[in-house]
Amino acid sequence: MSEPISASDTNTIEISQETDRPWERLEELADAGDTESLTTYLESLSVGDQALALSRTDEAHLQTVLTSLAGEDAAELLRHLSESQAADIVETLPAEDAAAIVHEMPSDEQADLLGDLDAKQVSAILEALPHEEADAVRKLTAYSDDVAGGLLVREILRFDYSTKVADVISTLSENADEFRDYDVQYAYLTDAENRLVGVLPMRNLLFARRSDPVADIMIADPLSLRDDTPLDDLIDFFETHHFLGVPVVDAEGKLLGVVHRNAVDYEATRAAENDFLKSQGIIGGEELRTMPLFLRARRRLSWLSINILLNIGAAAVIAIYQDTLEKVIALAVFLPIISDMSGCSGNQAVAVSMRELSLGLIRPTEMLRVWLKEVSVGLINGAALGLLVAIVAVVWDGNPYLGLVVGLALFANTIVAVSIGGTVPLVLKRFGFDPAVASGPLLTTVTDMCGFFLVLGLATAMLNQLI
Amino acid sequence: MSEPISASDTNTIEISQETDRPWERLEELADAGDTESLTTYLESLSVGDQALALSRTDEAHLQTVLTSLAGEDAAELLRHLSESQAADIVETLPAEDAAAIVHEMPSDEQADLLGDLDAKQVSAILEALPHEEADAVRKLTAYSDDVAGGLLVREILRFDYSTKVADVISTLSENADEFRDYDVQYAYLTDAENRLVGVLPMRNLLFARRSDPVADIMIADPLSLRDDTPLDDLIDFFETHHFLGVPVVDAEGKLLGVVHRNAVDYEATRAAENDFLKSQGIIGGEELRTMPLFLRARRRLSWLSINILLNIGAAAVIAIYQDTLEKVIALAVFLPIISDMSGCSGNQAVAVSMRELSLGLIRPTEMLRVWLKEVSVGLINGAALGLLVAIVAVVWDGNPYLGLVVGLALFANTIVAVSIGGTVPLVLKRFGFDPAVASGPLLTTVTDMCGFFLVLGLATAMLNQLI
Repeated sequence: MSEPISASDTNTIEISQETDRPWERLEELADAGDTESLTTYLESLSVGDQALALSRTDEAHLQTVLTSLAGEDAAELLRHLSESQAADIVETLPAEDAAAIVHEMPSDEQADLLGDLDAKQVSAILEALPHEEADAVRKLTAYSDDVAGGLLVREILRFDYSTKVADVISTLSENADEFRDYDVQYAYLTDAENRLVGVLPMRNLLFARRSDPVADIMIADPLSLRDDTPLDDLIDFFETHHFLGVPVVDAEGKLLGVVHRNAVDYEATRAAENDFLKSQGIIGGEELRTMPLFLRARRRLSWLSINILLNIGAAAVIAIYQDTLEKVIALAVFLPIISDMSGCSGNQAVAVSMRELSLGLIRPTEMLRVWLKEVSVGLINGAALGLLVAIVAVVWDGNPYLGLVVGLALFANTIVAVSIGGTVPLVLKRFGFDPAVASGPLLTTVTDMCGFFLVLGLATAMLNQLI
Repeated sequence: MSEPISASDTNTIEISQETDRPWERLEELADAGDTESLTTYLESLSVGDQALALSRTDEAHLQTVLTSLAGEDAAELLRHLSESQAADIVETLPAEDAAAIVHEMPSDEQADLLGDLDAKQVSAILEALPHEEADAVRKLTAYSDDVAGGLLVREILRFDYSTKVADVISTLSENADEFRDYDVQYAYLTDAENRLVGVLPMRNLLFARRSDPVADIMIADPLSLRDDTPLDDLIDFFETHHFLGVPVVDAEGKLLGVVHRNAVDYEATRAAENDFLKSQGIIGGEELRTMPLFLRARRRLSWLSINILLNIGAAAVIAIYQDTLEKVIALAVFLPIISDMSGCSGNQAVAVSMRELSLGLIRPTEMLRVWLKEVSVGLINGAALGLLVAIVAVVWDGNPYLGLVVGLALFANTIVAVSIGGTVPLVLKRFGFDPAVASGPLLTTVTDMCGFFLVLGLATAMLNQLI
């Protein structure tokens, strides 16, 4: 992957070119049983190509690849994959092999991975792990992904606060290789009951007298967070503080581990990606096209069936006005336009509300404020869209009253759509629902009903002018 | 914000409660001119409440707040805000005051902020900065946000590689306060021409002889990236390597600065959030409801006007079949259902394709693969939805042929929708367009046209059975 450049004499990386069909090469190497070439080949691939190659390799070869790699290399490989892909792969492995890989993962990744497997497989893997480790993993897996307990790593530097500076330095020096993987800037100091009493910035060791206890150069009463601190508060914490990590304690102040900034950033990205997926109707877990067909179809269908019922409900309004529609058939052309455009306007308002909610710029109770801000935009854009559609109607049909009806309806329904779109996420949030999932269908149903009612109701009122 | 808990004797943070109307308190304190209380009050607020308070404070008070804080505190405050909010606030300040704040920001934030201001204001601020700094800022601002050059910080520890260990340690010790803000784990070693020759992990200083040159304990030929490395490759780099930062060099191998993992994670989150906003029709920049009404309306309208034109084009299909519709008015009830449901099915396929593209699990050229995977889901879900809508039609209208027409149409159009939804993001990506912006409108237009054509075409063919 890296290529020294003679001009600069440094190891500047040229990102590798796409490899053609890397999964075929992977299967070849697995068949040949040459572990070293396999490892080298995988390392030569970009992260994207690793994910691609593994997703396209058949199950038998995949097992050979993962079991022939050293546990550590396999763990490293899995951490580059999306969580659902990693879980899908581990599910194909015998529990013993899966346990060997899990054993090499840092504790936050262990918890993530096991959280995505089914209960039966989790207990099989836990049984295959060393007893003590299994206990620790079980404890962390009990936390959900979005609280401090579920995001912490147990692999931290921990010393009794009475340890001498010289002893800390010699421990560090003896275990330099192991600690290299920790990205260590701090050691955490505890008392005899494992309660956190201080944090020791490693750089303080540089200037310290070696015979002093580390307590003399530690930061006493360090900031820490409880294990049940939710993700939003963790994001807030790392925005407020420059730290790369924060120690996490349980109800008794005992040190459980450290949540790193990276883990929180990663979850924040995942939350944003999930909001996108959910708003598009991918619910109940990420979908990759390598997953079984019926799982994919079933998950998508559960979302579609709710939507079609809501849609049929909205369309019932049209059925009520069938007589009017029969007399002014041109209205049928405009019904889908009004439905689609109101959806578009409403979704814009939904997106702005969700963004403002996540930035803290609006509170779930401030319905009136949002509504006023949306109505003003709705008046302008509704007028523009209504005018446009009215002109189209008049030019096409020749009857100015048809223009009046559809123009007025779209104008009014745009205002309805932005009002609902702006406030629905606040209401959902306030009552503990997920705005990303539920805002879209609720918005579409109400604006469709209302739009059909406006067009057909106005047309009924002006029927004499329209015929 | 922090509250010691007696039970544990540690500084476990209780996340502060929401403050009622914090902007009023802020305006009071600004009027009183008490800088110290102002600083203390702002620090007591959560990041969300800071953003809220600043967004609701009027312009005059905001100027007082920002100019009465020390430049450093004001810079700290702005970094907690979203980029568009920060830019909006800085735009209200005189160039001198803005420059005093910019001066205190790390270089990547300087570049971000100035990138969001208009050109006239940027040059006013640059003129008010010290000459040398203005040059450096100008250089970084020239890079776009999504390449290494635009994300790097210049504030790094940099030594000549011939410096003695003892001299590095004493420099660190003398400047301990300044370096505390750097989150330093590495120093970067350069030759006389400022070319990167090595990286020095700070922990190596612990075990080194003080009279040796740092070159003896450095990592020689360290990995580095070019200034034009795009964001996707940076994400890939940090997924592959454990590093917290990577040095960035120009074409001649000269060290420009370091891109930190955090900056890359932040951009990744922003990209995911923007995909969500764009897919919902918030285009041309983030919208906050504190922005001017006409800006908000104009940006939203530019997106809506394209959509309404596409919509009118699709609805033209209905106009063509007006005769059929006149004879079987019940069809008008099902047109919006078929349009909406096809949009839903297609959007699911769009979301999965965009996710697989971003994970590298699919290449933009693999249209056939995606299409096959989507058709199979489309067959199942189309059959289920088609059957449901057919039953509804038969129960409501009593004519089995109406059920046949709308059921078949929805079945076929679901397959069309997932085929288009799955492949459109690949095509757009391949030709350099943004799938998040363009997939939705393209999908809706084609599936609407096709759906209307299917319902009304089938109905025309079976007209004798339907009347």
